[in-house]
Amino acid sequence: MTNYRIDNLQYANWSEKIFRQMREGGVDAVHVTIAYHENFRETVLNIEQWNRWFEQYPDLIFHGEWASDVAKARETGRTAIFFGFQNPSPIEDDIGLVAVLHKLGARFMQLSYNNQSLLATGCYEAEDPGITRMGKQVIKEMNRVGLVIDMSHSADRSTIEAADLSTRPITVTHANLHAWQPALRNKRDDVVRAVTQNGGMMGFSLYPHHLKDKSACTLTSFCEMIARAAEQFGAEHFGIGSDLCQDQPDSVVEWMRVGRWSKEIDYGEGSAAAPGFPPMPEWFRDNRDFGNIEAGLREIGFNAEETAGLMGNNWHRFFAENFTPE
Amino acid sequence: MTNYRIDNLQYANWSEKIFRQMREGGVDAVHVTIAYHENFRETVLNIEQWNRWFEQYPDLIFHGEWASDVAKARETGRTAIFFGFQNPSPIEDDIGLVAVLHKLGARFMQLSYNNQSLLATGCYEAEDPGITRMGKQVIKEMNRVGLVIDMSHSADRSTIEAADLSTRPITVTHANLHAWQPALRNKRDDVVRAVTQNGGMMGFSLYPHHLKDKSACTLTSFCEMIARAAEQFGAEHFGIGSDLCQDQPDSVVEWMRVGRWSKEIDYGEGSAAAPGFPPMPEWFRDNRDFGNIEAGLREIGFNAEETAGLMGNNWHRFFAENFTPE
Repeated sequence: MTNYRIDNLQYANWSEKIFRQMREGGVDAVHVTIAYHENFRETVLNIEQWNRWFEQYPDLIFHGEWASDVAKARETGRTAIFFGFQNPSPIEDDIGLVAVLHKLGARFMQLSYNNQSLLATGCYEAEDPGITRMGKQVIKEMNRVGLVIDMSHSADRSTIEAADLSTRPITVTHANLHAWQPALRNKRDDVVRAVTQNGGMMGFSLYPHHLKDKSACTLTSFCEMIARAAEQFGAEHFGIGSDLCQDQPDSVVEWMRVGRWSKEIDYGEGSAAAPGFPPMPEWFRDNRDFGNIEAGLREIGFNAEETAGLMGNNWHRFFAENFTPE
Repeated sequence: MTNYRIDNLQYANWSEKIFRQMREGGVDAVHVTIAYHENFRETVLNIEQWNRWFEQYPDLIFHGEWASDVAKARETGRTAIFFGFQNPSPIEDDIGLVAVLHKLGARFMQLSYNNQSLLATGCYEAEDPGITRMGKQVIKEMNRVGLVIDMSHSADRSTIEAADLSTRPITVTHANLHAWQPALRNKRDDVVRAVTQNGGMMGFSLYPHHLKDKSACTLTSFCEMIARAAEQFGAEHFGIGSDLCQDQPDSVVEWMRVGRWSKEIDYGEGSAAAPGFPPMPEWFRDNRDFGNIEAGLREIGFNAEETAGLMGNNWHRFFAENFTPE
């Protein structure tokens, strides 16, 4: 059996350098964010930009659509790029765009990003009334076409309701255990349980605000958290979703945080004193360092199969089961 | 060898009745127009409407994307629906939309519709300065991704230049010989030669304004025209593109003719006294009557293989060679 290496969330300032680092790190597939606040037409412009990169760097990357593309990536020595949205803004108020965007390659969509959306509540809202009327319809449509529900930035009640309403497994593509690092975005046990108990998956994040001791977090501490999650919920439900935001200028953090919804700056997990991206932990600078995580997982006591699952095989299995129409 | 029946142009007021008539007529594939003047977003709305029909009538129709879908249609007793545009309006001023729309299923695009477009000149313009700067770039991109150039409503010089510039065969999906019926939209010999000599195809139209004696045209006269074209240019370059506009109200003829580009009505091939669709010839009412054309072709002297080519196998071969990326 081939062991695949998959990172299920990145939003870098893409360049040939980064695509080469993916190859150096032996990363077979990356789920990349192509929309934070973009509407449909703007999302299509982002797809057009990716099409240009696929044309310019055919030896390094190609558009991934199905689990079989992960094998194709390995066979051809390239990285398969899978598209996802951190917000349902690309579908606007039009349920017909779910199928259209799946056809264009979208494979993950968050039902909300920090704020209330048309579908669900975000994790920064004071109140969480749960999945909306449109949200229930869209969950059904996402299930039908094979667009995976991602609740990484959603509030707890909305997340648990989404897991219940969805007939197919859902995900938190990038977050850590709240019990390990009590960041607002990290997930409490009842949320992790709701996501994983029906076959769902969670990806562990390397975003420093989600790490214990932030940029100073040790590899051992990170792997201990994974061991704890595996013990509680089963190692097969976890993988990596690094949230790598490599080479992004601070203006992009600002776009992620306020889009067009506010004239006032909102620092999210940062602050006025530290508005940008915090430095990455030294053992995970970028795509070249997945080997460090793999070594850390073995060190902490995971066996070879569990480690291979966490490094990519679990996401690969999830892709195979959840990207195709019902 | 299976003989396929393909109609390479229809724009009906789609309904379950019409889909059932496709089955009754044994039509394996239909190229349907999904844009006349629509911009990108409006075209996507039309795709969404087709997605609903595919969901509602899965036993009658499905979305056709490749030549292999014609075989799949035959095997499953359904009709494969291929998308096309009669105008480049869906790509707006954005060459990146060529690949996006091909991904969404577009397989034919006219470079102009009656008027000057951003790419080429339409057949109703007084002057035809040929393919534009953007037109040259878009032809290259259409060749690259496998979106077929259709010059049905374009002016002669633009058509001949497109045939020369394109590295892949081009089409006139729906028109007849000008020498048989001198309608503005019918094609002169030099145009037919330019289209067919590099492997291109032309589909014969049943639109009464393009027929000799219009609605009173006889089946024999229609088949004689086909025999003449076959003799002059080779039978393998021809098929049917009926231009069937079944059940459309006059308001749709008006939309086709003036879209949003004029406040004054333009009657095209009609007139103030007869602004709507003329009645179809009695031997071709709708999809149920392809058998009449097939019988007429045998009657006029085409052998079994030539007849099968004209009824669909030629288009099938063309689909196989021209819908995939270079």
